[in-house]
Amino acid sequence: METILQDLHAIVGDAGLLLGADVAQRPAMSLGKGSCEARAIVRPATPEELSQVMALCHRNDQPVVPWGGLTGLVNGATAQPHEIAISLERMTAIEEFDEQAGILVVQAGAPMQKVQEAAADKGWLFALDLGARGTATIGGNIATNAGGNSVLRYGMMRQQVLGLEAVLADGTLLSSMNQMLKNNAGYDLKHLFIGTEGTLGIVTRAVLRLHPLPRSRNTAFVGVESFAQLSILLRELSASLSGQLSSFEVMWGNFYRLMTEQTGKHPVIMPTDLPYYVLIEATGNSADEDAQRFEQILGEALESGTLLDAVIAQSETQADNLWAMRDDIETLVQAMSPLIAFDVSLPIKAMEQYVQEVETTLLSRWPEARLLVFGHMGDGNLHLIITTGADTDANRHAVETLVYEKLVPLAGSVSAEHGIGLEKRQFLPCSRSDVEIALMKTLKQALDPKNLLNPGKVI
Amino acid sequence: METILQDLHAIVGDAGLLLGADVAQRPAMSLGKGSCEARAIVRPATPEELSQVMALCHRNDQPVVPWGGLTGLVNGATAQPHEIAISLERMTAIEEFDEQAGILVVQAGAPMQKVQEAAADKGWLFALDLGARGTATIGGNIATNAGGNSVLRYGMMRQQVLGLEAVLADGTLLSSMNQMLKNNAGYDLKHLFIGTEGTLGIVTRAVLRLHPLPRSRNTAFVGVESFAQLSILLRELSASLSGQLSSFEVMWGNFYRLMTEQTGKHPVIMPTDLPYYVLIEATGNSADEDAQRFEQILGEALESGTLLDAVIAQSETQADNLWAMRDDIETLVQAMSPLIAFDVSLPIKAMEQYVQEVETTLLSRWPEARLLVFGHMGDGNLHLIITTGADTDANRHAVETLVYEKLVPLAGSVSAEHGIGLEKRQFLPCSRSDVEIALMKTLKQALDPKNLLNPGKVI
Ligand SMILES: Cc1cc2nc3c(=O)[nH]c(=O)nc-3n(C[C@H](O)[C@H](O)[C@H](O)COP(=O)(O)OP(=O)(O)OC[C@H]3O[C@@H](n4cnc5c(N)ncnc54)[C@H](O)[C@@H]3O)c2cc1C
Ligand SMILES: Cc1cc2nc3c(=O)[nH]c(=O)nc-3n(C[C@H](O)[C@H](O)[C@H](O)COP(=O)(O)OP(=O)(O)OC[C@H]3O[C@@H](n4cnc5c(N)ncnc54)[C@H](O)[C@@H]3O)c2cc1C
Repeated sequence: METILQDLHAIVGDAGLLLGADVAQRPAMSLGKGSCEARAIVRPATPEELSQVMALCHRNDQPVVPWGGLTGLVNGATAQPHEIAISLERMTAIEEFDEQAGILVVQAGAPMQKVQEAAADKGWLFALDLGARGTATIGGNIATNAGGNSVLRYGMMRQQVLGLEAVLADGTLLSSMNQMLKNNAGYDLKHLFIGTEGTLGIVTRAVLRLHPLPRSRNTAFVGVESFAQLSILLRELSASLSGQLSSFEVMWGNFYRLMTEQTGKHPVIMPTDLPYYVLIEATGNSADEDAQRFEQILGEALESGTLLDAVIAQSETQADNLWAMRDDIETLVQAMSPLIAFDVSLPIKAMEQYVQEVETTLLSRWPEARLLVFGHMGDGNLHLIITTGADTDANRHAVETLVYEKLVPLAGSVSAEHGIGLEKRQFLPCSRSDVEIALMKTLKQALDPKNLLNPGKVI
Repeated sequence: METILQDLHAIVGDAGLLLGADVAQRPAMSLGKGSCEARAIVRPATPEELSQVMALCHRNDQPVVPWGGLTGLVNGATAQPHEIAISLERMTAIEEFDEQAGILVVQAGAPMQKVQEAAADKGWLFALDLGARGTATIGGNIATNAGGNSVLRYGMMRQQVLGLEAVLADGTLLSSMNQMLKNNAGYDLKHLFIGTEGTLGIVTRAVLRLHPLPRSRNTAFVGVESFAQLSILLRELSASLSGQLSSFEVMWGNFYRLMTEQTGKHPVIMPTDLPYYVLIEATGNSADEDAQRFEQILGEALESGTLLDAVIAQSETQADNLWAMRDDIETLVQAMSPLIAFDVSLPIKAMEQYVQEVETTLLSRWPEARLLVFGHMGDGNLHLIITTGADTDANRHAVETLVYEKLVPLAGSVSAEHGIGLEKRQFLPCSRSDVEIALMKTLKQALDPKNLLNPGKVI
């Protein structure tokens, strides 16, 4: 065994070091694709072990790739043959629960769903939620500043983190485990590690802020006549459901038609010829009153013409069914393969025209192409799903260029929530200026001068 | 005139450069105290001018001190004779208003109140509010990550900022004017400038997120029997006023007694012998329903014994009067002078014992001392007002040491919202570890290697 592997073994023991076939059977990237090529997988049992591991790697100029649940969607955790993957899969404990204040202290390898359940058990809500909840980890959520379905009300992962602990490039263990909502004692260092995709440090623990578990959930599916009406509806609901509107998920008409009449996967619950549909959800605390209010507000929107049609879920099952359609990635993938998926954000006022322009340009170049659009409109976040029929790298690159370049004049973002990783690195300049990228590099150079932490990702 | 002043004059012109008597008539620190000793005051008219100014200062190793409204409470803007103050008082424009999305683009010198009013005019809320609103600027709010009275619902200044522009130490103009709720395209650079008190860059513009203007406000003043009940009340209200509880301002009994029976400044509205009082506020969107609900929730708390007494404001005037007592700093200063004021944060579960221990130790050393306590308990933030009768530096230092050292075992913060500045710099190690402070210095070194931006502040 090479010396560095022996030294690593001395720190983490048998259970902490995977080599050879144990490495190859792990995926090369998220969604289980490919075969991992890393030199080794190290699985420290404690932050202190990881600290020693990084000190050793630092002395040996050994690059590393931090691993959470490998559900990230931008190839942020792909490890090359000369790199060592550092997996937090043995650091999954929920360490402390302040039930009074609603604060959880967890290890970074803890799966998101485990954290959600621990919180819910005691009447609290861990407010981040996304489809990969069973596998994605808190560390991965932090490193990607994950979003999800209730950002409108609760914010992204950044807003759920009060404090954290991280191992720096040279093995230093930085503990910044603040437990207060307010702490202005010097620079707030946690932001260096939130959304920086493992390039500035490896997150080992986090202090999470919880919210009271809502006792009511009201869900509706509505049809809208125009984008202008959609904007009015969003503003009206934000005001009238003051503080309780948690989702405003828009589907362009062709998304709804695909899910219903075209594939038969979901029931037709209102006419399919409308241009826009919205899944609306509000969470509150008084089952009866909230339901009444929700109904009344939607009723008013119907009367005023802001809505053309509305179906209010009458049970948890009906609500779940509405979400099932919104989240039915499988049907989408089947119908649209080979597809290219985008996760962009842009000012709401520019959305309608942006989508039209992408579609027009797309069809002028690939007459057979199809475009589906849906997304967290309240957050400025749209998912575009495009298929041209072809499945080559060149084709993919041409489509990406088209979609991203049209964001530039709108000051939009090539990544609303998934991050940059390897996949979008070349398009970062569409959303960030030279000055911004230079400052990112200054930070990287300051914290990781040897470029050992997830090299080549993001910048 | 010295060469650098001539060169500055060439950039900013007559209106942009103050010297001699014009400098001396400005205060040395906040609250109008002392006489400014700075070498000059530069007042650029645009970000581009400021960029040239900083490039010049950088070439000449000239340290600068950024100025907003000079309302900061920790001597963060004090300029020494060899330093140049950079005031944003000529950059106060509101540049853009996206009325649909609720987004304002402003120059950093814009006073907070001007921004609040511009937002309110169009039905939007700029959600930060604090006593110095008429003078404090958006740039100062950002640089100090200001808090205030509705953090519980809306968060601190950090949560109100979507994007910003800043001039770096070498004059580089960094524009990071993101307008979306979600943008994970690389590192989120704005956090380098929020809460770093002008030590990493001078903020010139900001994109502010607004919220729908609430249409109802419900305010109550309640009395509580014990700290345990106070905690229960906070948790119950957070849940039952789901998303709408905006203030939970606790006063220890002696604060209320001082304001009412002892000074006669405010009417006695409930028995004065209770240990704790709370000013509660919820904002919502339906005048009638919200009021009914508020009353019902407080009624239930009375019945269950969580509350001993409650007065619900029946008009805007009554609500304002309750706030007037909470914010009556003048009466406090008169009654307690010479006083030392603290702005600490700590876990809620440790508050009761912390205050008791501070009081016991204080009285054992200064038998005549008095301690008043109030604060944003929901945020973990307490203000302690202490007088020992004496007014010497040594005395002040001894009291500060006492108050701050007792925070150390609780992992509390020496500054919940005001920042560190010069005033609290020596106590930063009470709240931050050597590793944390070293990382702050790494950042400072990376962004301002010549130590020209507000040198000596924070770290
Ligand atoms: C079905 C599905 C639905 C999804 N829905 C959403 C959604 O709605 N919103 C959204 O934002 N994302 C979504 N994602 C993307 C992804 O799940 C999230 O970004 C998730 O937060 C990643 O967590 P992970 O533990 O799997 O991280 P990984 O995939 O293991 O890693 C992601 C990145 O973070 C780094 N990293 C991981 N752990 C650490 C650590 N402890 N310290 C430092 N760096 C680390 C990795 O190096 C990599 O760069 C979805 C993914 C899937 C598969
Ligand atoms: C009556 C009163 C009540 C207050 N209440 C609260 C409260 O409830 N909550 C709270 O948090 N604070 C409170 N404060 C403190 C203070 O008002 C706020 O922190 C305010 O945000 C400071 O704004 P300013 O423009 O006056 O900044 P200044 O005092 O001018 O500057 C404060 C710091 O920021 C730096 N700075 C200023 N402008 C910029 C810029 N454009 N770029 C970079 N750095 C800059 C300065 O160098 C200094 O370090 C209160 C103060 C007073 C006098």
